[in-house]
Amino acid sequence: MPPDPRPFVPDDPAFATRVPESFARQGAMATIGARLVAVAPGYCAIDLVPTPALAQQHGYVHAGVVAMIVDSAGGYAGFTLFPATASVLSVEFKLNLLAPAQGDRIVAEGFVVKSGRTLTITRGEVHAESAGRRTLVALMQQTLIAMHGKPDAPAA
Amino acid sequence: MPPDPRPFVPDDPAFATRVPESFARQGAMATIGARLVAVAPGYCAIDLVPTPALAQQHGYVHAGVVAMIVDSAGGYAGFTLFPATASVLSVEFKLNLLAPAQGDRIVAEGFVVKSGRTLTITRGEVHAESAGRRTLVALMQQTLIAMHGKPDAPAA
Amino acid sequence: MPPDPRPFVPDDPAFATRVPESFARQGAMATIGARLVAVAPGYCAIDLVPTPALAQQHGYVHAGVVAMIVDSAGGYAGFTLFPATASVLSVEFKLNLLAPAQGDRIVAEGFVVKSGRTLTITRGEVHAESAGRRTLVALMQQTLIAMHGKPDAPAA
Amino acid sequence: MPPDPRPFVPDDPAFATRVPESFARQGAMATIGARLVAVAPGYCAIDLVPTPALAQQHGYVHAGVVAMIVDSAGGYAGFTLFPATASVLSVEFKLNLLAPAQGDRIVAEGFVVKSGRTLTITRGEVHAESAGRRTLVALMQQTLIAMHGKPDAPAA
Repeated sequence: MPPDPRPFVPDDPAFATRVPESFARQGAMATIGARLVAVAPGYCAIDLVPTPALAQQHGYVHAGVVAMIVDSAGGYAGFTLFPATASVLSVEFKLNLLAPAQGDRIVAEGFVVKSGRTLTITRGEVHAESAGRRTLVALMQQTLIAMHGKPDAPAA
Repeated sequence: MPPDPRPFVPDDPAFATRVPESFARQGAMATIGARLVAVAPGYCAIDLVPTPALAQQHGYVHAGVVAMIVDSAGGYAGFTLFPATASVLSVEFKLNLLAPAQGDRIVAEGFVVKSGRTLTITRGEVHAESAGRRTLVALMQQTLIAMHGKPDAPAA
Repeated sequence: MPPDPRPFVPDDPAFATRVPESFARQGAMATIGARLVAVAPGYCAIDLVPTPALAQQHGYVHAGVVAMIVDSAGGYAGFTLFPATASVLSVEFKLNLLAPAQGDRIVAEGFVVKSGRTLTITRGEVHAESAGRRTLVALMQQTLIAMHGKPDAPAA
Repeated sequence: MPPDPRPFVPDDPAFATRVPESFARQGAMATIGARLVAVAPGYCAIDLVPTPALAQQHGYVHAGVVAMIVDSAGGYAGFTLFPATASVLSVEFKLNLLAPAQGDRIVAEGFVVKSGRTLTITRGEVHAESAGRRTLVALMQQTLIAMHGKPDAPAA
């Protein structure tokens, strides 16, 4: 669910097409069956459906897979506010794992906390949904860097 | 490369078989082509070969995939020192990304810093290898919890 | 400002006296002039007034001083939910610094995200207040451990 | 103890005087009795002697005080490699607390892992020394930013 309206004004109105285009270039997202489910200024949500191919040794979704979707959700939340000529890289993130990632669907959301010219700080939440019940499974705090002059899209 | 000899004495001499057995149960490791390449008391190394199926939008290995192998390397480093009747979960980890993860091979190593009855602290390093050159691509700090009375292996 | 009502029910109704008593035993809080300004189930706020004695090299409040009050705010937020016979220790925390800590007053707030028997996860925010304006200066994510059977208060 | 010789070549040979001058401007370091004990390219050590004025509720040195000295040690380790016209700010750090900070002396060491034009990554260790015995009490991972064109020293 998108957050309350936020005072984020995108530099580039085309962010709504730039994000799915970039997401489509992430082979890793396809490999784990991740889907881009929402994009708004300063916000992004990515989900996946648990399968044995994503499991750790107890059958839950691997913490690293949880990290993959919440790192991307935070990164694209930040990217929505970047100029068209910049791309995004994760500088670092920290993830607390609160409950086993299991259920019908795992949803990662990234929220921009502060967007700067060079650095952007985001926070992330991952929930597991099961039979209409939502459980917080992970909490993230992340630093992104804007690579100015390096557009995300490959040259034509 | 395993670290200098450390004063870690495994509680369970069978750690050397318990780790690969547990690793084999992690479907997520097979999905990304990760391989368990070394296990020693308080140490574990896991590698993979970069492919487009593991890439982020610029073609480098996705930060979350890097997180997957270094989280598992740290977790199994800790697990080598656990009693046979305990399993391991990641409480949290923090990952700094220092350089693009690209090359012939990406190797994640986990090192136990302190092993306690309940909590274990590890650090991790991820290197990219290319034409015999090794580049540090990520640095991790991690907290694990031992789940006593919950063996890693499913009941027969 | 305390958060929206939360479903946190303290195990020990005396938490409202245990927290200030414990805070009073923290010599470090007196050294930096920190004050306990609010305590509620799963919540704690601590503030201080910037002085040169708390400054880093540019005259802002030192990042470590910011860490001191938000680490304590998170710790006491968790402690409000602990049984009377347990004390609290920080396992780890991660702090992002978003803006210079300067102004009339610096306020750190800790919020419990998940309270477990052994581990408690909190998040923290630090705001600078100046002429009625509030700026987010730091964001924290923290893990606490409950030390059962080790009451916070020294034996009489 | 300084690390093994490292391939760090300072941009500004005057780093050895710039660091103590900057340290002397940190009022917060004086307030907690912290002393700059070693500076080398990519390395810095800061210590203090535990007193009740630095304690948390159990009498150990407060985790935030530990954070203060290791944050500064990491920051100055990075600063040794900066040009004379840049100052340093902490972007974020993550601290694991491994053992109570108590003893004759607490020593924080910062080590540069990677020094870039904009961002520098360090790691930190804090040891407690007691009767000649050294115990690791905390482990840090930190991101710094170089503020180019903003010298650390105030204009004369």
